[in-house]
Amino acid sequence: MQAVIAQAEQATAQHLNVRDLPLYGMIRYHLGWADEQFRPASFDAGKRIRPAICLQACTAVCGDSEPALDMAAAIEILHNFTLVHDDIQDRSETRRHRPTVWALWGESQAINAGDAMFALGQIASLRILDRELPIERSAAALRGYNDVALRIVEGQVLDLGFEERWNISPTDYIQMIRGKSAAIIAYAAWVGAILGGADVAAADRFRAFGEMLGLGFQIRDDVLGIWGETAVTGKRKGDDIRRRKKSLPVIRLVSAATPSEVDRLRDVYSRTDVSEDDLDWIMGLLVHYEIEDELQAVVDDYHDRARQLIEDAVPDNPSRRALLDLLRRLSTRAF
Amino acid sequence: MQAVIAQAEQATAQHLNVRDLPLYGMIRYHLGWADEQFRPASFDAGKRIRPAICLQACTAVCGDSEPALDMAAAIEILHNFTLVHDDIQDRSETRRHRPTVWALWGESQAINAGDAMFALGQIASLRILDRELPIERSAAALRGYNDVALRIVEGQVLDLGFEERWNISPTDYIQMIRGKSAAIIAYAAWVGAILGGADVAAADRFRAFGEMLGLGFQIRDDVLGIWGETAVTGKRKGDDIRRRKKSLPVIRLVSAATPSEVDRLRDVYSRTDVSEDDLDWIMGLLVHYEIEDELQAVVDDYHDRARQLIEDAVPDNPSRRALLDLLRRLSTRAF
Repeated sequence: MQAVIAQAEQATAQHLNVRDLPLYGMIRYHLGWADEQFRPASFDAGKRIRPAICLQACTAVCGDSEPALDMAAAIEILHNFTLVHDDIQDRSETRRHRPTVWALWGESQAINAGDAMFALGQIASLRILDRELPIERSAAALRGYNDVALRIVEGQVLDLGFEERWNISPTDYIQMIRGKSAAIIAYAAWVGAILGGADVAAADRFRAFGEMLGLGFQIRDDVLGIWGETAVTGKRKGDDIRRRKKSLPVIRLVSAATPSEVDRLRDVYSRTDVSEDDLDWIMGLLVHYEIEDELQAVVDDYHDRARQLIEDAVPDNPSRRALLDLLRRLSTRAF
Repeated sequence: MQAVIAQAEQATAQHLNVRDLPLYGMIRYHLGWADEQFRPASFDAGKRIRPAICLQACTAVCGDSEPALDMAAAIEILHNFTLVHDDIQDRSETRRHRPTVWALWGESQAINAGDAMFALGQIASLRILDRELPIERSAAALRGYNDVALRIVEGQVLDLGFEERWNISPTDYIQMIRGKSAAIIAYAAWVGAILGGADVAAADRFRAFGEMLGLGFQIRDDVLGIWGETAVTGKRKGDDIRRRKKSLPVIRLVSAATPSEVDRLRDVYSRTDVSEDDLDWIMGLLVHYEIEDELQAVVDDYHDRARQLIEDAVPDNPSRRALLDLLRRLSTRAF
């Protein structure tokens, strides 16, 4: 798997050296390849899950990841464009233990950096037109790339709207992460299969696999945002509560708790800081209503459905094993 | 020409009805097709110069605008995406006599609206893959679309950097507007010709025509920002000075003025408000150094070069006359 990620990394890098301007320096900084003075460096650059899934799906279908390299790069660039803009919107000052782009260079330049990354992602994706692919397949892959972008933005609009609302059902929440988190993973699996030459039905199973994996991964992430161990997540326990995030554990808690408990919860979330007493109370309430177990069961269910889909779609081969291994690590990960 | 613009308008509209969500309502609002409650409406939607040039270039080459309709729509959407993000960056609260998207719905949602428009522009542009075009031509057109986006963002980065600087030469300024303003007009003319079936050399003349027209248009806009009559521009005389914009007249003034005049100018621009006395002094200085005449001569020069290019590239026909008419109106316009 490491080799596949390195391949994706290299494909990504070669699409981002356009001109020698600070704009591209900010982009390399965000991706972990440059420091604040734009000097070459090597920082934590994220897990590169999306290109890995794209390349493994392609390999599972045709035995080679090469046909999907450009698109894997394009997907990683798209994902990172959305992170740069999300960080502005969420006022997140650090990402992967470094200051975010807007925190260093201001909002306006971070908007520019994200916009340029989106264009660079398109340019990477358009390289599939140089390949010997049926034009209908290329066109569908390229349209899908932009439909994913729309789904992510739609999810982000919903997510920002949640900040003002308390009547969010778990179904609303799943709809939001289906757009914001799962759509790009579903696309990565689908387009990898398409570029590998899969037929429409097989590619659809890859898409469904990616969606189940993406939903499970995001909910596991929400669980870790509250119960993850500092040593592995780099965050303190209860961090998402401290940041007053309305992630799935809190949304489930609101539907399980009594009206007076919900009132107190809303009161806590309306203040700028969450006290240690309030944090303990909320953590206790989550234990009382067994939210962690309930959500891990949801993750496991998505995991099982994803596993079944891939086992039906692909004969046993190293790529299938790599996809199942990735699925297992993302569903149970403590990182 | 009005018929051509209406055609472009219709093509644009049909690419923007994706799903019934507030996200798409904000986009329709920005384009003048909806009010603040997203009810259908018809506001001033801008001059639609870019799609008109694209369609006329196509018609000049092949006698028909139809092959360029999707791309004309895509270009107008791209242009408007950059306006939505620019308004956030420039803190502009009104555009075309209405509140801007960020002023109504906040910065975060305006970032989202712009991002979604960029994806919608791509989807519109990808429709050229359904046409009977040589794939190399489609691929070049699609890559060019994203290269323009990069040029616009690069120009915007430069422009934002100018706010902090005083050592801006007219050459620096031309480089900035070449990216921010002229690149998309050059592309519109080039891609219209390409989609009409022009050979590479002819398409290059259209591109050069568009660049000259774009540069002249932007400098004429800068002139109007200072000397335009309220009745026609909707702005007061000297408005760009009041807004402390470093447009070309001010940059030329800085290179022409004495050191003590430059010191006073910097001092005026360092304050939050420009007094009427200071405004009068700057307007007087601009007259003294004959900046308006000098810049109109620059506009006229670009105009002449653009005219020559189109006269060499196209035999006399209604589309050539329409392009020359547009050129004349943009170079001399008082609106």
